[in-house]
Amino acid sequence: MSAPDRAAAAAPFTRVTVVGAGLVGGSVAAAACAAGIAEVVLVDPDPAVRRRASERQLAHRVTDDLAAAVADAELVVVAVPAPVTATVVAEVARSARPDAVLTDVASLKGAVVTAVEAALAEWRPARFVGGHPMAGSERSGPDAADAELFQGATWVLTPTACTADTALSRLSAFLRDLGARVLALPPDRHDRLVAVVSHLPQVAASALADVAAEATATSGEAVLAVAGGGFRDTTRVAASDPDLWLGILRGNRAAVLDALAALRLRLDGVRDALAAEDWDAVHALLARASAARRELVGKPDVERAVDLVVPLEDRPGTLATATTALGEAGVNVEDLAMRHAADGGRGALLLRVDAAAATRGLEALRRRGLAAHLESDETPDPPPGPHEHG
Amino acid sequence: MSAPDRAAAAAPFTRVTVVGAGLVGGSVAAAACAAGIAEVVLVDPDPAVRRRASERQLAHRVTDDLAAAVADAELVVVAVPAPVTATVVAEVARSARPDAVLTDVASLKGAVVTAVEAALAEWRPARFVGGHPMAGSERSGPDAADAELFQGATWVLTPTACTADTALSRLSAFLRDLGARVLALPPDRHDRLVAVVSHLPQVAASALADVAAEATATSGEAVLAVAGGGFRDTTRVAASDPDLWLGILRGNRAAVLDALAALRLRLDGVRDALAAEDWDAVHALLARASAARRELVGKPDVERAVDLVVPLEDRPGTLATATTALGEAGVNVEDLAMRHAADGGRGALLLRVDAAAATRGLEALRRRGLAAHLESDETPDPPPGPHEHG
Repeated sequence: MSAPDRAAAAAPFTRVTVVGAGLVGGSVAAAACAAGIAEVVLVDPDPAVRRRASERQLAHRVTDDLAAAVADAELVVVAVPAPVTATVVAEVARSARPDAVLTDVASLKGAVVTAVEAALAEWRPARFVGGHPMAGSERSGPDAADAELFQGATWVLTPTACTADTALSRLSAFLRDLGARVLALPPDRHDRLVAVVSHLPQVAASALADVAAEATATSGEAVLAVAGGGFRDTTRVAASDPDLWLGILRGNRAAVLDALAALRLRLDGVRDALAAEDWDAVHALLARASAARRELVGKPDVERAVDLVVPLEDRPGTLATATTALGEAGVNVEDLAMRHAADGGRGALLLRVDAAAATRGLEALRRRGLAAHLESDETPDPPPGPHEHG
Repeated sequence: MSAPDRAAAAAPFTRVTVVGAGLVGGSVAAAACAAGIAEVVLVDPDPAVRRRASERQLAHRVTDDLAAAVADAELVVVAVPAPVTATVVAEVARSARPDAVLTDVASLKGAVVTAVEAALAEWRPARFVGGHPMAGSERSGPDAADAELFQGATWVLTPTACTADTALSRLSAFLRDLGARVLALPPDRHDRLVAVVSHLPQVAASALADVAAEATATSGEAVLAVAGGGFRDTTRVAASDPDLWLGILRGNRAAVLDALAALRLRLDGVRDALAAEDWDAVHALLARASAARRELVGKPDVERAVDLVVPLEDRPGTLATATTALGEAGVNVEDLAMRHAADGGRGALLLRVDAAAATRGLEALRRRGLAAHLESDETPDPPPGPHEHG
């Protein structure tokens, strides 16, 4: 970044326009107001949506006049349905200042970014940065908008070779002011990543639920009776809205196909190993996956940490008791997770603390009557022991 | 069941011996004491285990003398490692009364039941009923034993054509007294069912985690940043102990292979439909799976779970404040995780609660001054309302 770019990066936006007053757009406007942006304008074509946005004071001004609303804006956030995103961004570009920064919030980036940069080719693609806030809600519309929606959430930005440094840096600073953690990724990498960590798990969960449903044809209620926590966890997302997911899979078809091929490779590997009774190969996959799952979801860089294990009861309060005990003992929890019992029984809470504070933490937990014990970092998921499992 | 059988079914056991004082055996003994059985004896060859079992008063008597301990028992529960289960049951049979009921707790039934019935052929296979309590804990040994372990848990019994009605009915009554829900299944059907609802999800979760791990080779931390609740849920069991699961997959090889073939059929169907852009076929699987998941898991889990996101400060107390607030509001935390900031800044705490309790939870958190917001569970790629999505 050049020296003038640094200066520009430091300069906050004073006029921000958000196009689309739904959950995300309304939340961006409300968060921008809360962050002290001087003038926040919301644009929406739907009178009922505008009325609710006004009543909830999500922005300083709510209007249906897109051209006027973007004319003076330094940043325009386009939060409209994905299929019309590129069109609306191009329309915004025609009325916006030449130096205005433009961004969108569509959940797939490759197609949108390509379309926008093509549409803006005669204008200034450098001022556009694709974006995808990884935050949402079950609810939708301006009623669900929330100034706190992006606190702690990842907001992916997808700059390309076209993108101006100033656009990226100013937009990043703005998003951090909304509470988001900004992560820059190439558009196609973003789409490939969500294919692997979101779309593939969805397809797998659906397939697993479908296989189990077939089993009910012969075993009825018994399927439910023997399905434990593992089944519930693994298939939970299968209950999602099929229409929503059809759109997502359709939009990310190529990346999902690649991810499916990668999954198939593993599953065929397990099948072949089971068929050949190659137990070393089966163990290798299980061990690799176990380590990977912990590493992926755990905190990357804990120096000297240990896990305190607290058996959980499935009722409100245990969790609070445990964490309160640690808080009051001045023990900071660096990471935590719930471990579910293999057979769907009661699980345990794993509280990762600095090794130096472990004894203090255990004592605090035990004083509250919790049967806490230490667990080494290497064995976060011990087997239930020879007397319980075969 | 004949009339005398009914009478026998009503007669409770007065002397119960449990072989193996681990988590399951110790819990059976403790629950039997709590249920008012007059004489409960625990047998274990390990002096340290016996000492702890005695100190915890898990039974009326703890001994290493198997023959003496089973000589007068009306019911003997064999809770030893699966590989030696059949041998121990046969040993018990040699010393037990001819009318004693025998059962085991091995988590796979086909091989054990066949072996036991063969071993007892000259004695009384009619008095043996295979069993599998669907309850556990990540802890093991007598310290983890708990008289409440089986409350509300499913306990599968696997009678065969050999099994006497009285043995099945008396054992069922006993298990119900421990709080369990008894479900009778043929041994092979039990094994096929757990292959579908437990072993297959485990393999799929491992394969998904392994695919995601591969993505980290090119995208590192970004994988974690974009992985949402869907990924965490779907891959959770992948973190389990590989040795434990190797034993399970090995013991249920044929049924797991069948289940894998069924899963592969679905995944190939999705692949073919995506490749051919046959969106009706993709939608059909998603819709069928969505309906199946909701139906399979039934009322308690049909309500969708949502994540409450609480930005964290890296100091003791925030975690306790958040969880206490939920506990006091009667909101049960079903799962939780920390989301770490890539740059080492503030992370966020994700608290999974029933969707019906989400608003109450958010209000409770906000009353404590925490900037909590909702994050969608089933839409890791959030499907913000009509104004954000197409």
